[in-house]
Amino acid sequence: MPSPSPSSPSSPPSPAKVLVTGFEPFDGETVNPSWLAVRSLAEAPPAGVDLATAELSCVFGTAIEDLRAAVEATSPDLVLCVGQAGGRHGLTVERVAVNVDDARIPDNAGRQPVDEPVVEGGPAAYFASLPLKACVAAAREAGVPAAVSQTAGTFVCNHVFYGLAHLIATERPALRGGFVHVPYVPEQVVDRAAPSMSVRDIATGLSAIVTAALTTTTDLRVTGGATH
Amino acid sequence: MPSPSPSSPSSPPSPAKVLVTGFEPFDGETVNPSWLAVRSLAEAPPAGVDLATAELSCVFGTAIEDLRAAVEATSPDLVLCVGQAGGRHGLTVERVAVNVDDARIPDNAGRQPVDEPVVEGGPAAYFASLPLKACVAAAREAGVPAAVSQTAGTFVCNHVFYGLAHLIATERPALRGGFVHVPYVPEQVVDRAAPSMSVRDIATGLSAIVTAALTTTTDLRVTGGATH
Amino acid sequence: MPSPSPSSPSSPPSPAKVLVTGFEPFDGETVNPSWLAVRSLAEAPPAGVDLATAELSCVFGTAIEDLRAAVEATSPDLVLCVGQAGGRHGLTVERVAVNVDDARIPDNAGRQPVDEPVVEGGPAAYFASLPLKACVAAAREAGVPAAVSQTAGTFVCNHVFYGLAHLIATERPALRGGFVHVPYVPEQVVDRAAPSMSVRDIATGLSAIVTAALTTTTDLRVTGGATH
Amino acid sequence: MPSPSPSSPSSPPSPAKVLVTGFEPFDGETVNPSWLAVRSLAEAPPAGVDLATAELSCVFGTAIEDLRAAVEATSPDLVLCVGQAGGRHGLTVERVAVNVDDARIPDNAGRQPVDEPVVEGGPAAYFASLPLKACVAAAREAGVPAAVSQTAGTFVCNHVFYGLAHLIATERPALRGGFVHVPYVPEQVVDRAAPSMSVRDIATGLSAIVTAALTTTTDLRVTGGATH
Repeated sequence: MPSPSPSSPSSPPSPAKVLVTGFEPFDGETVNPSWLAVRSLAEAPPAGVDLATAELSCVFGTAIEDLRAAVEATSPDLVLCVGQAGGRHGLTVERVAVNVDDARIPDNAGRQPVDEPVVEGGPAAYFASLPLKACVAAAREAGVPAAVSQTAGTFVCNHVFYGLAHLIATERPALRGGFVHVPYVPEQVVDRAAPSMSVRDIATGLSAIVTAALTTTTDLRVTGGATH
Repeated sequence: MPSPSPSSPSSPPSPAKVLVTGFEPFDGETVNPSWLAVRSLAEAPPAGVDLATAELSCVFGTAIEDLRAAVEATSPDLVLCVGQAGGRHGLTVERVAVNVDDARIPDNAGRQPVDEPVVEGGPAAYFASLPLKACVAAAREAGVPAAVSQTAGTFVCNHVFYGLAHLIATERPALRGGFVHVPYVPEQVVDRAAPSMSVRDIATGLSAIVTAALTTTTDLRVTGGATH
Repeated sequence: MPSPSPSSPSSPPSPAKVLVTGFEPFDGETVNPSWLAVRSLAEAPPAGVDLATAELSCVFGTAIEDLRAAVEATSPDLVLCVGQAGGRHGLTVERVAVNVDDARIPDNAGRQPVDEPVVEGGPAAYFASLPLKACVAAAREAGVPAAVSQTAGTFVCNHVFYGLAHLIATERPALRGGFVHVPYVPEQVVDRAAPSMSVRDIATGLSAIVTAALTTTTDLRVTGGATH
Repeated sequence: MPSPSPSSPSSPPSPAKVLVTGFEPFDGETVNPSWLAVRSLAEAPPAGVDLATAELSCVFGTAIEDLRAAVEATSPDLVLCVGQAGGRHGLTVERVAVNVDDARIPDNAGRQPVDEPVVEGGPAAYFASLPLKACVAAAREAGVPAAVSQTAGTFVCNHVFYGLAHLIATERPALRGGFVHVPYVPEQVVDRAAPSMSVRDIATGLSAIVTAALTTTTDLRVTGGATH
C-alpha cells in the first residue's frame, strides 16, 4: 500500500454500544472538562452509536469500581475513558497504562498512594485497545488538535485506564477501550498562562475518536512517537 | 476605595464609532485568527457600537497605510488593532509599542528590516491609550483567558501598533486605541503542540474589551506586571 | 519510620562493577550530551566503583547489540544507560520501558519503525530496577535538578532501556539497571530557546545516581508521580 | 558589506572602567544568580577591563539610588546591570526599558507599585545603549546560550534599567549601558521544572558581553526580533 490510510472502514453493528466516562472535578477545580465534554457529546452522539455515559469519582479504587459498575450496567462494545490533563494543548490518546499509583497530590478522598500497584500482581503495563493513530487522525480531520501520548501519568486517570485494560484482559476479551486526556476549558484558566480548548471542540474531537475506534479495523501506519 | 473596581462605567455616546482591524495570514498560514475573529465580532457587535472593520496587509509600511486609510474612512472614537501571537494561551492586551522594526521572518512582501525605526525621529515607545487592566478583567469576566502583555514584538504587529499610537499622538489627540494579540485557532495547530482558542471565544473576548475600553474612565488598580 | 529516608545504606561489595553507557549524536547534532557526561564521569568515577563505559549507536537493533556486547565484556552489577532528552530541564530517571518502537525521526541508519515491538512477544513494559526516588534525591542533594520521568519515549532510548530490562528479566536476574535522560548541553542551544545543563553538572548528577543505586536497599517513599 | 560582521573591533582605551551590578535575592530565593555570576566575573575580569561591581537592593527607588551611588563612586565608561529572569533558558540582552512600575509580587521592602512611572514625566521608554546583536553573538561564540529580549518586565529589573538609561540621557551622555537577564542557577531549581545555567557559564557569557560592548563600534545587522 503506497500511502498510509486506514483499512476500509466497514459499518459497525448498528447501533454500537459505547460507554464514555468523565471525571468529577479535582485539585480545587470547580469543573472537570472531561465531564463537561462527555455531557456535550451525549447531547449529540455520533451516528450509529448507542451512547452511555458515567461520571467517575476522582478517588483511587472507587474510580475503578465506578467504571466496573457502569460497564456491568451497559455492556458496551467500546469504552472510552476521558480525563483532564491541565497544561496539554490538545486531545491526547493514551498509548499505555502502567501498573503504578504515585500521587503528586491527594485524590478527592485524601488518599495519596506512593509507588503502589493498581492491581497487585498485574503486568507492568497494558496497551490501549484502540487504533491510536486513526483516532488521532480523525480528531485532526474534524479540526481538533490531537496527538498520541506516551504516558497517562500515575494518578487516578492512569489508575482507571489500567483498571479498564485489566478488566478487558482478564474478564471481557471482546471489549475494546482506551483513554483520552483533554485540556483545560477556558473558564478554568482565565487568569492563568495555560492552554485550553472549548467544550464544543473537545466534544467534537471525542465524537470523531469514538467513530474512528468503531470503524477502523487496521490502524494507520503513521508515527505518533516521541524521541523521549 | 477598599477593593479594586473600575470607576463607574457611564453610557458611551451612542453609538460609539469603533474600528477593529485584523491581519491577513502570514508565515505560511492559510488563515489569520485576528481577521477570523474580527469578522465574527462584526456579525454580532457589542451593544451601542457602530463597528467598522479592516483587514490589514502583513507588510511593513503598507500595513500602516492600510490602517490610516481605514481611520480616515471611518473617523472612529476607538481603534483596536488585533494580530496573531502564535504560541500565546489567551488574549493579550499590549501595553507598549516600540519604535523598532526587527523582523525574524520576511513580511508578505519579502521585506525583513533589521533594527530600523518605525517612524524616523519618533519617540522610543508609546503606551496604549486603553484601560489595560479593565480590558483584561472584562475579557476574563466573559470567560476568556486574558492578560496584559509587556511586548508586542518587533514585527508588523508592533509596527502597526506604533503607527496607530503615533497617529494619535501627532494628528488625532481625541482618538484612543491599542493592540490585542490573539492565539492560534485550533485549525492552525491540529498537529502541533501549541495552544489555541476558538474563533468564538476570541470574538467574545474582543467584544468585552471594546466595551470596557469605551466605558471605563479610570483604569483598575490591579497588577498586570511581569517580573521580567 | 516517621519521615521518609532511605534505608540504611550499606557499603557495596568493593568495588562494584558499573557499566554506564551514552549515545552517539543523532538528529543532526554534533555531540550527544549523554556521551560527553559519561566520559566526564569516567574521569572521576564515584568512590568504590569500578566503572566501565560504552558509546551506543543511535540505531534500532544495533544499539541493543552494542549494549549486550558491553554487558558481556564487563559483567557489571549495575547498568545505567544515559540518553539525550532535548527540551527537558534536568536529569530524569526513567520509570518504565515500553515494548514499542515508534520513531518520529529516522535513526542514524535511516530506519524509522512505526508501532513495532522492541522484542516480539515481550511484555508491554518493564519497570526500572533502580531505586528511582533515592536516585532523584541524591542528584538533588548534589545540587543537580532531577525528577522521575514516566516515559522514555518510543525512540532508540526507550528501545535500549527495554532491551536492558528484557536482558535482566530473561538472562541476568542479578543485574540491576535503568535509564537516565539528560538535557542538552549549552553548546547545542546557543541560539535556541531550549534549556540546557553543563556537562560537569550532568556528570555530578550521574555520579550521585550511581552511588544511590548501589547503596540503597529500600527506596524512599516520596512521590515522583504525575497527574497526567 | 556582503556578510554581517561587527565593525573592526579596536582596542578599548586601556583599561576601560566597567561597572557590573547584580541584585540581592528576592521572591523567597536564598541566592540571586545575577550576583553570584557578577562575583564570579570579578574573580576573572575580561582582559583590559578595570571592573567594579555592586549588589543592588531589590527595592523600588532604593535600587536606583544604589546604582547611582555606584556610578558616582566608580565613574565607569560602561555599566552592565544584571538581574534574574527565572524561567528563561539563556542570557538575554534587553532592548528597551519602559517607564512603568507594575509589580506582580512585593519587592524586598514590601512595596508593590501598580502602573506608576519610574520617573515622573520621563519618556515612555529608552533603548539600551549597547550593541545588542554583537553582545548576543559574543556570548554565543563563547558557547553560552543568549538572545535579545524585547521586554525586561515591569519589576525592579526594568526599574533599574530605566533608571540607568535616564541617568545616561539626562546627566551622563558619555556613559553607555544596558541590562542582561540571566536564568536560575541549578541549585534554585533542583526540584522544579525550570531551566537553569551554571554560574560559570553565566559569568563566561557576561565576560563576552562586556568585551563586545567595549569593542564594537557598529552593531551587527542580524535579526534579534520577535514576531510578537
